[in-house]
Amino acid sequence: MAGTDGHHPGEGGGPVIVLVRPQLGENIGAAARAMLNCGLDRLRIVAPRDGWPSESAAASAAGADIVLDKAGLFDTTEEAVADLTRVYATTARSRDMTKPVLDPRGAVGEMRAADPDGAATGILFGPERTGLTNDESTLADVLVIAPLNPGFSSLNLAQAVLMMAWEWRMSGRESFAGRVLETGATRPATRDELLNFFAHLERELDSCGFLRPPEKRPAMVRNIRNLFLRGEPTEQEVRTLHGIVAGLTRWRGAED
Amino acid sequence: MAGTDGHHPGEGGGPVIVLVRPQLGENIGAAARAMLNCGLDRLRIVAPRDGWPSESAAASAAGADIVLDKAGLFDTTEEAVADLTRVYATTARSRDMTKPVLDPRGAVGEMRAADPDGAATGILFGPERTGLTNDESTLADVLVIAPLNPGFSSLNLAQAVLMMAWEWRMSGRESFAGRVLETGATRPATRDELLNFFAHLERELDSCGFLRPPEKRPAMVRNIRNLFLRGEPTEQEVRTLHGIVAGLTRWRGAED
Repeated sequence: MAGTDGHHPGEGGGPVIVLVRPQLGENIGAAARAMLNCGLDRLRIVAPRDGWPSESAAASAAGADIVLDKAGLFDTTEEAVADLTRVYATTARSRDMTKPVLDPRGAVGEMRAADPDGAATGILFGPERTGLTNDESTLADVLVIAPLNPGFSSLNLAQAVLMMAWEWRMSGRESFAGRVLETGATRPATRDELLNFFAHLERELDSCGFLRPPEKRPAMVRNIRNLFLRGEPTEQEVRTLHGIVAGLTRWRGAED
Repeated sequence: MAGTDGHHPGEGGGPVIVLVRPQLGENIGAAARAMLNCGLDRLRIVAPRDGWPSESAAASAAGADIVLDKAGLFDTTEEAVADLTRVYATTARSRDMTKPVLDPRGAVGEMRAADPDGAATGILFGPERTGLTNDESTLADVLVIAPLNPGFSSLNLAQAVLMMAWEWRMSGRESFAGRVLETGATRPATRDELLNFFAHLERELDSCGFLRPPEKRPAMVRNIRNLFLRGEPTEQEVRTLHGIVAGLTRWRGAED
């Protein structure tokens, strides 16, 4: 049976998110919000415990009503995935079944390679308390297991949806490269050291009348602080800056 | 001023998560849960609107009480970041300030390179409704902006924390490589086509008594389905499989 969400494989819009027997409406709404944050809008819901539509889902969707309004409602997980060609099952732990396992980033990389717009791809999420049954996991090609803290791996349902939706979104982009400051023998200044310097400098700038008129002072202070912060001063350099300000202002006391 | 969360720069535990003037206790709790999911446990809270400690935070932490119990409470953002050497401000949009901008993955890559255990690194998150003020953003070295859906970019606070905590966790790992199936001129079978084949096969296996005893049937069916799914059959191959089952069972009708 084809889905009732108005999409067909090939139409695009990223993978289908399938919530299997979700218990709390607020998690359905929060999942819809997380999906739309990441540009996904194809939601299918299998046998929600508290019925459908759901007022608590609408309240927690925070404006993602479009996702809820066109969500497909299904009696069984089989029907919800019938028209898909790739199905991934998110689960907290490995099952006793011979099935490939990938982490979320690896799984999304594979989805993008096999089905670049995700049109015929679905991701299953189980109920809050129990997760997917073995029979439901068996419907999938691949198990997706996030390498979370082994001592605390139970993720909120909407958080799990965000994780996959976010990985999907990022998989379509190039990330910026990292940028590192070489500090040599010294170390980056602490925030406290920088704030002390800013206080010193701004006290002197107030005193010489530079930070006027008063209504412009906040923006001027921000611009000056940003200028110094962009330089990412070291502890050594902050001491130098203190010395510069002290040096530049020494004559003023003498002239008074 | 040093934090009151029991950690010192250099002790490890990943970056400090700083929630600036959070409004809802349930978001603080959900953020603590997301942190601990990803192995982070250093939380600092600046001037929470509804006071601290918070019953609603504890309720939504879902067991991450350890994070809440040792969270540091601060009156100002300046105090909360005073002992840090690298500070990142998450924000939904670019500000009118000359400050480096990175996406979450790029920012975390940079954090790892500059401060591998995150000990002296902090990530700021603003209040739910308004985000960080310009003065608060100015405390940071770098703005972190997630490339979300431009038409719907407002992320729940705990979801934003999960995103950064998850990126931190993944930045310490190698992801699995993707895996792609070459299908040539045909296409992967739909789930419906596969389920039709399973129904056909299992009907015949029931009929010949293979799927006995009944209490073992569910596990046997799962194992057989998993075996075929691991092969990732094409539409062409599913038709072949139907032909094989039909061929293998044709004699049975004749013998009856």
